[in-house]
Amino acid sequence: MEIRLDKIAEMVGGTLQGDGSLICRGANPPGQAADDELTMLVQVNQSADIASIKAVAIITPQLIDSASQPQIIVADPHQAFAKVVKYFRPPIAASLPGVGVDSSAAIASSAKVHPTATVCAGVTIGHRSLVMPGVVIMPGCTIGADCILYPGVTLYEYSSLGDRVVLHAGTTIGAHGFGYRQENGRHVASAQLGYVHIESDVEVGANVTIDRGSYGATRIGEGTKIDNQVMIAHNCQIGKHNLICSQVGIAGSCRTGDYVILAGQVGLKDHITLGDHTIVGAKAGVMDDCQGNQVYLGSPAMPQREQMQIFAIERKLPEMRRELKTLKKQLGELLRRLEDADDGTTSDDHNESERAA
Amino acid sequence: MEIRLDKIAEMVGGTLQGDGSLICRGANPPGQAADDELTMLVQVNQSADIASIKAVAIITPQLIDSASQPQIIVADPHQAFAKVVKYFRPPIAASLPGVGVDSSAAIASSAKVHPTATVCAGVTIGHRSLVMPGVVIMPGCTIGADCILYPGVTLYEYSSLGDRVVLHAGTTIGAHGFGYRQENGRHVASAQLGYVHIESDVEVGANVTIDRGSYGATRIGEGTKIDNQVMIAHNCQIGKHNLICSQVGIAGSCRTGDYVILAGQVGLKDHITLGDHTIVGAKAGVMDDCQGNQVYLGSPAMPQREQMQIFAIERKLPEMRRELKTLKKQLGELLRRLEDADDGTTSDDHNESERAA
Amino acid sequence: MEIRLDKIAEMVGGTLQGDGSLICRGANPPGQAADDELTMLVQVNQSADIASIKAVAIITPQLIDSASQPQIIVADPHQAFAKVVKYFRPPIAASLPGVGVDSSAAIASSAKVHPTATVCAGVTIGHRSLVMPGVVIMPGCTIGADCILYPGVTLYEYSSLGDRVVLHAGTTIGAHGFGYRQENGRHVASAQLGYVHIESDVEVGANVTIDRGSYGATRIGEGTKIDNQVMIAHNCQIGKHNLICSQVGIAGSCRTGDYVILAGQVGLKDHITLGDHTIVGAKAGVMDDCQGNQVYLGSPAMPQREQMQIFAIERKLPEMRRELKTLKKQLGELLRRLEDADDGTTSDDHNESERAA
Repeated sequence: MEIRLDKIAEMVGGTLQGDGSLICRGANPPGQAADDELTMLVQVNQSADIASIKAVAIITPQLIDSASQPQIIVADPHQAFAKVVKYFRPPIAASLPGVGVDSSAAIASSAKVHPTATVCAGVTIGHRSLVMPGVVIMPGCTIGADCILYPGVTLYEYSSLGDRVVLHAGTTIGAHGFGYRQENGRHVASAQLGYVHIESDVEVGANVTIDRGSYGATRIGEGTKIDNQVMIAHNCQIGKHNLICSQVGIAGSCRTGDYVILAGQVGLKDHITLGDHTIVGAKAGVMDDCQGNQVYLGSPAMPQREQMQIFAIERKLPEMRRELKTLKKQLGELLRRLEDADDGTTSDDHNESERAA
Repeated sequence: MEIRLDKIAEMVGGTLQGDGSLICRGANPPGQAADDELTMLVQVNQSADIASIKAVAIITPQLIDSASQPQIIVADPHQAFAKVVKYFRPPIAASLPGVGVDSSAAIASSAKVHPTATVCAGVTIGHRSLVMPGVVIMPGCTIGADCILYPGVTLYEYSSLGDRVVLHAGTTIGAHGFGYRQENGRHVASAQLGYVHIESDVEVGANVTIDRGSYGATRIGEGTKIDNQVMIAHNCQIGKHNLICSQVGIAGSCRTGDYVILAGQVGLKDHITLGDHTIVGAKAGVMDDCQGNQVYLGSPAMPQREQMQIFAIERKLPEMRRELKTLKKQLGELLRRLEDADDGTTSDDHNESERAA
Repeated sequence: MEIRLDKIAEMVGGTLQGDGSLICRGANPPGQAADDELTMLVQVNQSADIASIKAVAIITPQLIDSASQPQIIVADPHQAFAKVVKYFRPPIAASLPGVGVDSSAAIASSAKVHPTATVCAGVTIGHRSLVMPGVVIMPGCTIGADCILYPGVTLYEYSSLGDRVVLHAGTTIGAHGFGYRQENGRHVASAQLGYVHIESDVEVGANVTIDRGSYGATRIGEGTKIDNQVMIAHNCQIGKHNLICSQVGIAGSCRTGDYVILAGQVGLKDHITLGDHTIVGAKAGVMDDCQGNQVYLGSPAMPQREQMQIFAIERKLPEMRRELKTLKKQLGELLRRLEDADDGTTSDDHNESERAA
């Protein structure tokens, strides 16, 4: 599927700056767009990263001088970008599938699908993959070779799995991201046009939820292992060979490097970036980006050394408070004694300090 | 369905104070009972709110002077009230449903139910609603128009949904509340005779659990949006247009106002009330009622301003501890020096202070 | 199923110390092995508990002098032990089951299985048990009498339930434990050869996950009640009559006594032991063993009394910081004043102290 840039400008009613004959083969957010794909930049301060953007062209509300690509200038870039995303990946309205495997699905001869599973239109399933009872695979999903989908797994439309991916029972992949804007006192869902891409050798535990991206992919990197009841929100880009323990919650648009470890019940604020080999201790709440090769603890999370010191001192708070009271008393007595000895010449000052205390 | 008050008094073996000819058309907890419904009050100090109770009559263990309604006095009000609740909403024992749609279900002609879904006796489903593969709708449920129930959703008996309600995959509505009393060293489940009512325009994420009320409804207000893996316990009354983020846990009998926002992994203690426009930050643990129009952070949760100050000072605890030690040392030295200069006239006092420190 | 010790030594290529004619009837971890079962000890410091081990023999990498049992000495005890475990409980590779009830399953005449449920080879189901729509029971599972498995429950192979066990909708029992070792930069799943055993009168809420043990059972004790969205990891040994509230996460190999209560969103670090009648408050993070008959709060969790004191003082931190500053200022002024009066004879000392502060 491909389209010229001048046709895209026409489609979205925008002004094209640059070579309209260039060919576009997809649409993705800045960090994900390939050489031949369109992307979108909304804020001018995002232009700092412009050199790293590979896209063939950029949709933007105002001309970005520092960009080398052609640009399509529009009033509402989100609306325009959504239009292009929909052109390449037409949204599939929820509709009732037939029973069993749709005739347009391409199932490898050695793959096995249970008769109580539902496989919708346009799905492909690779060799030796197993689809267990009650699994539902919505339209446009792609499943590689040697995957196992345990009972009760649901894949929403356009989900894609690499090879040797294991999804344990009750896991839901690709549900709508939790994004709303308020209009007239009501929450209106923002477009959730993306999908979930899980790379090869990923294992996902039971009752996990991974939401689709807004425009592009929520991505789980190769070899990453995810424990039960983990929640990964829309647009997250999880690195390779991560270990994500049970009940971790990762808010929208987070990014983890490779070999990151998140212990049980950890939470990540949205838009956080964790460097390679970051380790976050159980129950920590990460509120800021973390450089890699370090351990973080606590909520708000801090480097281990700092947090351990604070934990230790917190246990001594009752002692500190007693010491403080004793000091206050001793100093007060001393000041009064000196005052008395002094004939009261400095008494006003002392009274003032005591009041301040 | 209706019954006279004198008949109810007879049914529960209680003493009626008031007009026995009045008609009762339901039974609900104090906050939920309508004008023509019976309610129950157990503790006399609950009588503070008696003016706000609309019920046609009250079941109580002792006469409440301040109540204007007729009262039915019984020894065990829980047992008596349960009897009346069961009269109006007969408990349905778990039993094996048939395959597909029960003949007594009323499905709108434009609604669509997947052949692998199970729709039990007495269920009604409104126009254009979609029931996806593997969904189970137990007896007595009511589903409005334009609802979508994604794969693997389970509705326990008597659940009711308004219009345009979306339930994502793997979500369980109406399971038994977690209420037990101990008898002879064993936990015995208390009656869970209530149900779940979800108002119109509510969207519920994947793998969410919302438990039924003990006697009446666990209620989700109109337009509220609930993210994946949220847990809402029995008897909660969630307001309108709330945003409840992923992995939030709300314990039993909580009440939220309108436009409340709970960020990821927040926990609410049971019987908490949050005012309109309350915002609770990620991972906070709310232990007390919160007035509205304010942000709360931390665990135990405090107003944002106070908590931010405490978070900031916690980071300075090591510095504070060092300062405290220095002060102690300086003051000790000073006291010793003055003592020496003093010829020891006050030495006893100082030794005492030092021992106290 | 039984085998002589000398045959086991032969099977694993080990050196037998002791009576080879003894009969072995199973293989289990040290705390679980019965009189006639084999166990494994890897670390010599584990020998402290040797007196309490009932096993008929021990697989170990080096002779344990203090053990009274026969021993089988091998280079890689994990590999050898896994071999014996597999001999007694052959691993069942994921494979596609047939539709409905397998002909080798033994279903009591009064039990009821919904036609959309899947019951695999070798399963037994006791009298009056109910298996609701969409439930999947994998090979080798045992279900007692009067159990209810609500819609969408999945039992992985070899799961066993006592009598009157209730599993609410969407719950997954016996998925693989989250155990990996790194090889050449990739995470490789360690053997998960165990199973889940749930004793009688246990009730499990909706969307719960309980993982199988590595070699033996993850065990839930009689009469214990588990709320929605709880996660219990591999090898845990949960005591009798516990109450485990919603969204609790228990990491691997934890052990709880009887009548333990874990409030909502509590987390337990792996290998923690909680004594009988331990109570852990909501959101607490337990990092160390807890003796019984006590309440623990906070993260890291501490005894209630200590933690409440710390919570209270944390709220006073801003006040403490102000007091500290005032004291510092007062003492500084005093020291300067004394210095001036002193003709400066001790000024060097004071400057030093101030610098240290």
